[in-house]
Amino acid sequence: MEVGYLGPKNSFTYKAASYYFDDSSLQPYSSITSCLNALTHMQVDYVVVPIENSLEGSVHTSIDGLFHHKDIKVYKEIILPIKQNLLVNDLTIVPEKILSHPQAIAQSQHFLETCYPNVLIEQVPSTTFAAEYVAGHPDESVGAIASKEAAEEYGLEILSENIQDNRFNQTRFWLLGKQPFKIDDSNIQKLSLFITLPKNTPGILHKVLSAFAWREIDLSKIESRPLKTELGEYYFIIDVIIQDNIPLVEHALEEITLLGVTYQHLGCYSIVIKE
Amino acid sequence: MEVGYLGPKNSFTYKAASYYFDDSSLQPYSSITSCLNALTHMQVDYVVVPIENSLEGSVHTSIDGLFHHKDIKVYKEIILPIKQNLLVNDLTIVPEKILSHPQAIAQSQHFLETCYPNVLIEQVPSTTFAAEYVAGHPDESVGAIASKEAAEEYGLEILSENIQDNRFNQTRFWLLGKQPFKIDDSNIQKLSLFITLPKNTPGILHKVLSAFAWREIDLSKIESRPLKTELGEYYFIIDVIIQDNIPLVEHALEEITLLGVTYQHLGCYSIVIKE
Repeated sequence: MEVGYLGPKNSFTYKAASYYFDDSSLQPYSSITSCLNALTHMQVDYVVVPIENSLEGSVHTSIDGLFHHKDIKVYKEIILPIKQNLLVNDLTIVPEKILSHPQAIAQSQHFLETCYPNVLIEQVPSTTFAAEYVAGHPDESVGAIASKEAAEEYGLEILSENIQDNRFNQTRFWLLGKQPFKIDDSNIQKLSLFITLPKNTPGILHKVLSAFAWREIDLSKIESRPLKTELGEYYFIIDVIIQDNIPLVEHALEEITLLGVTYQHLGCYSIVIKE
Repeated sequence: MEVGYLGPKNSFTYKAASYYFDDSSLQPYSSITSCLNALTHMQVDYVVVPIENSLEGSVHTSIDGLFHHKDIKVYKEIILPIKQNLLVNDLTIVPEKILSHPQAIAQSQHFLETCYPNVLIEQVPSTTFAAEYVAGHPDESVGAIASKEAAEEYGLEILSENIQDNRFNQTRFWLLGKQPFKIDDSNIQKLSLFITLPKNTPGILHKVLSAFAWREIDLSKIESRPLKTELGEYYFIIDVIIQDNIPLVEHALEEITLLGVTYQHLGCYSIVIKE
C-alpha cells in the first residue's frame, strides 16, 4: 500500500500520516495538488493533507482541490497540536538568523518579535529544510523553527520550546482515498458536504440551514469558498455532527435537493485527537 | 490628504486607488498590515486594500486585520477586472523559470500546469517585483506573471495574454478610513458586519440568518474565519444588500443582539465596478 502526504519527511502531515501507516508505505509529495493528483491517477492508495489550522483557517488548496476531484472521499480526521521550537546546533549559540516555513514563522510571530526583534528571519520551503540547513552549517549562528522530531532527526538542541503564539494551535488533517478504508470506521462522528446553491434564490442558505436546524442536526462548520466563476458566487463546505441521526440527515439532504441545491458527499468519518 | 495602498506602484490596488486619488496623495505600503497600521496611527487619512478575489476568495490579512482594528470603516467598494499575462524580455525566449506573486501564480494555475508543467515557478513579493527582475536580467530565460501596465512600465513583451484561469477574474477593493468620506456616498448599496456567535448555542447561525430572511433582507456573502482561539471557533463576515430596507436591517440587528450575538458594523457603502 502506498500513502502520499504533504512532505517532506518529519512535516506535521508526516506525523499525522505515521499514526496509521509504516514509513515503508509513506511517499512525500511537494504540494497538496500533487498529493490529490497522485490519488486521482492511482499512483497511491491514500493521501494525508492538512485541511484547517486554528490560527490560519482553512487550507484552501485542499478544500478547492477536493471540490474539483469529486471521486475522493474522507476516511478519517486527525487533529494534531502544532508545537514549534527554536532549534540550534549548540545551546551556547545566539542566533543571528532564524529560518523556517512562512506558516511556522507566522505562528511564532509574537515570540520572534519579543525575543529576537533584530534577528534576520528567512523563509524557506519547509521546517524540515530549516532544520537540515542548521544541522549542515555548524559554523553559522543560525536557528530553525521546527518540531521536536526534526530536532531528533537532525541532532539539534532545543533553545526554546513551544514558541507558537497560542497554546491551542492545532491542525486538522484528512486521510483521503478512493476505496473503502478499514481502520476503526465504526465510530462515525462527522459528515462533510460541499453544497452549491441555486442562483438568484434569495434566502436559500437560510432554508438549507433550516432543513438541518429543525431536525436538531448540529453543524460544526460552515464556510464559503468562491466557485471561481464570478464574484459573489460561492460553494459552501458544511460539517455535520453525526450522533444517531443518520436518517434525519438523509431527510435533510433529500429536502435541500428539492430546493434546487446540489451537494457532494465527502464522506462520513471518525475524528482522532492526538496530544 | 494622504492615502495608503498595498504597493508597489502599478499594483492592482494602485489602479483601484488611482480612480479616486491623485498620484501625489498616494503612498505605497509593502503589506496590508502596514496599510491598516498606518491608518490606525493616523499616518494616512485613508487606505485602499484588496478584500476578495473571484478565484482565490477573501484576502484573509485584510478581513482578519479589520476584525482587530475596530475603529476602521469601509467607505467604498471598487471592483476591478484582474488580467494576468506572461511577460518576457524577448518573444523568442522559452522560459525556464517563471516569477510572480503567490496570488498571481494561483490565478494562473491551469495555464502554468498546461503550458509550463516542468518550469520552475518562483514566488516573489509582487508582480511588479517579478516584471522588474525580468527586465533587469535579459541574459536569463525567465518570465514574469504581471499586468499589461507592468509590461509597458518595464518594456517587456507579452508572451501570453489573459492567462488567468477565468475570464471573470475580478477583485473587490475597499477604501477604508476613520473619518467621513465625501465622494458619492448617497448611493448606499451594501453594509458589512462582523458577527460573533455566543458559544455552545446549536443552530444559532440559522437563527441569525432567519432574522434577515423573514424580513426579506438579502445577504450577498457570508463567510467564516477562525477566531484564533481554538479549532471550531469562528466569526463571520456578512454582507447585507441595502435597498430601502434600513429600518428592517436595524430591527434584524437588534434582534440578533438579543440572541446573544455581538456584531461590529464595518460601514454602509456604494460599489463601483470598473471595466
